[in-house]
Amino acid sequence: MSDLITTRNLVEELRALLCEGEEEALQIFLQLVRSEDIAEWLEYLSDEERQLLLAALDHETAGAVLDDASTSIRAALIEEMDAERLARIAESMPRDEAADLIGELEIADSEELLQNISYEDERVLRSLLKYPEDTAGGIMNPDLVALPATATVDETISALRSAGDATVTAAVYVVDEKHRLRGIVRLRRLVTARPNATLGEIMKADVISVPVEADQEEVADLVEKYDFLAIPVVGANDRLLGAVTVDDVLDVIEEEATEDIYKMAGSSAEEEEAESLLHIARFRLPWLLVCLAGTQLSTTVMGLFAHRVPLFDQISIFTPAIMAMGGNTSLQSSTTTVRRLALDTLAKSRYLTHVLREVTVALLMGIACGAVESVVALLLHGNPLVGLAVGSAMAVGMSAASLLGGSMPLILDLIGVDPAVASGPLVSTINDSLGLTIYFTISTALLLALG
Amino acid sequence: MSDLITTRNLVEELRALLCEGEEEALQIFLQLVRSEDIAEWLEYLSDEERQLLLAALDHETAGAVLDDASTSIRAALIEEMDAERLARIAESMPRDEAADLIGELEIADSEELLQNISYEDERVLRSLLKYPEDTAGGIMNPDLVALPATATVDETISALRSAGDATVTAAVYVVDEKHRLRGIVRLRRLVTARPNATLGEIMKADVISVPVEADQEEVADLVEKYDFLAIPVVGANDRLLGAVTVDDVLDVIEEEATEDIYKMAGSSAEEEEAESLLHIARFRLPWLLVCLAGTQLSTTVMGLFAHRVPLFDQISIFTPAIMAMGGNTSLQSSTTTVRRLALDTLAKSRYLTHVLREVTVALLMGIACGAVESVVALLLHGNPLVGLAVGSAMAVGMSAASLLGGSMPLILDLIGVDPAVASGPLVSTINDSLGLTIYFTISTALLLALG
Repeated sequence: MSDLITTRNLVEELRALLCEGEEEALQIFLQLVRSEDIAEWLEYLSDEERQLLLAALDHETAGAVLDDASTSIRAALIEEMDAERLARIAESMPRDEAADLIGELEIADSEELLQNISYEDERVLRSLLKYPEDTAGGIMNPDLVALPATATVDETISALRSAGDATVTAAVYVVDEKHRLRGIVRLRRLVTARPNATLGEIMKADVISVPVEADQEEVADLVEKYDFLAIPVVGANDRLLGAVTVDDVLDVIEEEATEDIYKMAGSSAEEEEAESLLHIARFRLPWLLVCLAGTQLSTTVMGLFAHRVPLFDQISIFTPAIMAMGGNTSLQSSTTTVRRLALDTLAKSRYLTHVLREVTVALLMGIACGAVESVVALLLHGNPLVGLAVGSAMAVGMSAASLLGGSMPLILDLIGVDPAVASGPLVSTINDSLGLTIYFTISTALLLALG
Repeated sequence: MSDLITTRNLVEELRALLCEGEEEALQIFLQLVRSEDIAEWLEYLSDEERQLLLAALDHETAGAVLDDASTSIRAALIEEMDAERLARIAESMPRDEAADLIGELEIADSEELLQNISYEDERVLRSLLKYPEDTAGGIMNPDLVALPATATVDETISALRSAGDATVTAAVYVVDEKHRLRGIVRLRRLVTARPNATLGEIMKADVISVPVEADQEEVADLVEKYDFLAIPVVGANDRLLGAVTVDDVLDVIEEEATEDIYKMAGSSAEEEEAESLLHIARFRLPWLLVCLAGTQLSTTVMGLFAHRVPLFDQISIFTPAIMAMGGNTSLQSSTTTVRRLALDTLAKSRYLTHVLREVTVALLMGIACGAVESVVALLLHGNPLVGLAVGSAMAVGMSAASLLGGSMPLILDLIGVDPAVASGPLVSTINDSLGLTIYFTISTALLLALG
């Protein structure tokens, strides 16, 4: 709460300085705050205020603010900016961030920008832009300190001193004459080594690296597993191309979790970048249409039984309960399964055991819920057969739903489809018709046999 | 795939070495691998093999392996271990990890362990154990290099050299005579400074720190926002107590995302630690019972209308479609809202706009889906009134579902309840009865007025 009040006050103060045009006071204010905070405050400002604010920042701070801003705010700010200013800002950014920025521009604009910056920057940026954004190449920083094994600690420290702020410095890398990765020296080891020791003497030769085309999720898994601060990225013949730092890995982990959560709901994290309502609808509607097609199955099942089940009026009023309980049980099983797959805590050899566990848990819960519902149905209709049908169908239906929800992600995983899809509308729709079929079949059989 | 084959081969080799009891070959094998990999292989081994393997490891490696193992495997291994060995292992671990390990023991066992270790370790561990595990104090490492501002770079490097492996070294901290945090010097700055400069000259005095009782999520947000490698933790009067490192923040972020995902499904991430089926059921059943209670509302709605709606047989067969489409639309809206709240990309001043957007998107999609379903209903029954009722109820129902799904997380957030709950079974159940009421009301009105 106090945080919120502070933010509000600071934003109000900033807004006053911007609208009064007090250049000097604004500059003093901006000296006292961090670029990450400025990026956050953009959310609270009008378009015009954002423009004024960005114009008041030096190139480097403007670059840092743009990098931290949300995609839609960044896009709006860049559009209003002249090419010359944007080029200076891009030059002042770490090259991996500059490449991300350029990647978001229209082709014509990015070409104009690339022709406005130094030849060296252009060359590096063009090579970075070639890598897909969700690979090691797409998130790596190409600027690092790489030296031969013969370099001394003193020489290495000089190299670090002259390296720019945007250089990866969690470690220095040891390369041979063909720039192949040969070893790694963590900064801490470097600090505590003798000044005249060579890197070859203090380096760790057993280095874990990732190929430049590796998926970003794989990179994140390695950094997380081994608690690295940075991981080197290599191309063909083990040539050192860059390194992915842990702060980028944090973003990847959050991004992947978001992607999974959105998939569970039949949507896409990309919709957050969509500005217009029609764009958002475009991401969500396909799932709903698939679901709508699926519901025809439920409609057909109900239609088929409508004239065959005795007491349809009494039986049909419990269909929402049967469907809801099946849906929730299936969601519990699919969610557990999808998350365990994402976190890598489910070995392939345990797939069958896992599904059996899920189904057994669901059966236990189904018996409990079914018993409660039987009593409710009996009280509501005074017909013990309806109660029996509803209760037993709930127990069977919940177990079947759990079988579907628990095994579907594993099957998808085995055939190479993202298992997160299994918690979405697709499975819930199949589940509905399955639950209804079980319910009406059991009801019909019971009522015809005993009724 | 090739990764999997490598893992399998290595596990097979390890298993052979363990069962043949070839002590020497086993030691050579273990020298060549990393503790993180050993922890992963535990999943594939039998209980007995795990015991043999752990017995073959030195204290330090055993500690690292235990720290990385899953909760249930760790618990089983610790239970079989004698107190003396466990004490030696705990002493060799970073103290924050040792405290986590001790925190998982039974009170009697943890007391025995604490009396078996050095007085200094015992004192520090007892103070760490006082902090709740999801606070800054619960995840901080108390071992860091803290020196007065008058210390020179050379002296600082000596201090780093004599610090243990488990010390936080992303930065050194500057404290005054009362151990109050006064500044920070990042390792990189230290490396490139003159050897006789003092820390006071090169430190950054504007330090962001967290109070020891801060929630771990708050700590993670700060580290992520400012791209820190570690953040200092302070107690009363700004006294420096420790630091949280970025590798622990990675775990927090993954843990929090998992917690949110499980809540969406009406479960708890803690169930992963549960070994028995009844334990798992205990986590999930409460949600299902709440949902079951909620479905009585749907049953009542259907029961009320069963004898009032003309053509109930024809109308009722579309209830699964109405419910499914409402449920999915609500889930899309609640998921987007919950995730944006979790990622802090939704300012309080935008809440109303956000809900309006969600509802408008849902209305657009509802009109599309409703039109399709009208045609289907018409073809199925040849009754245009049934088609009209189903189609318009779907459009209205989907908008209402989105209003519920989009606003519920915001309301929960405003009253201080975790918004992730809003994507769970609770809301989906309310949603079902809402959709049914809308559908039957529209059908009754249309059929009675025009039929």
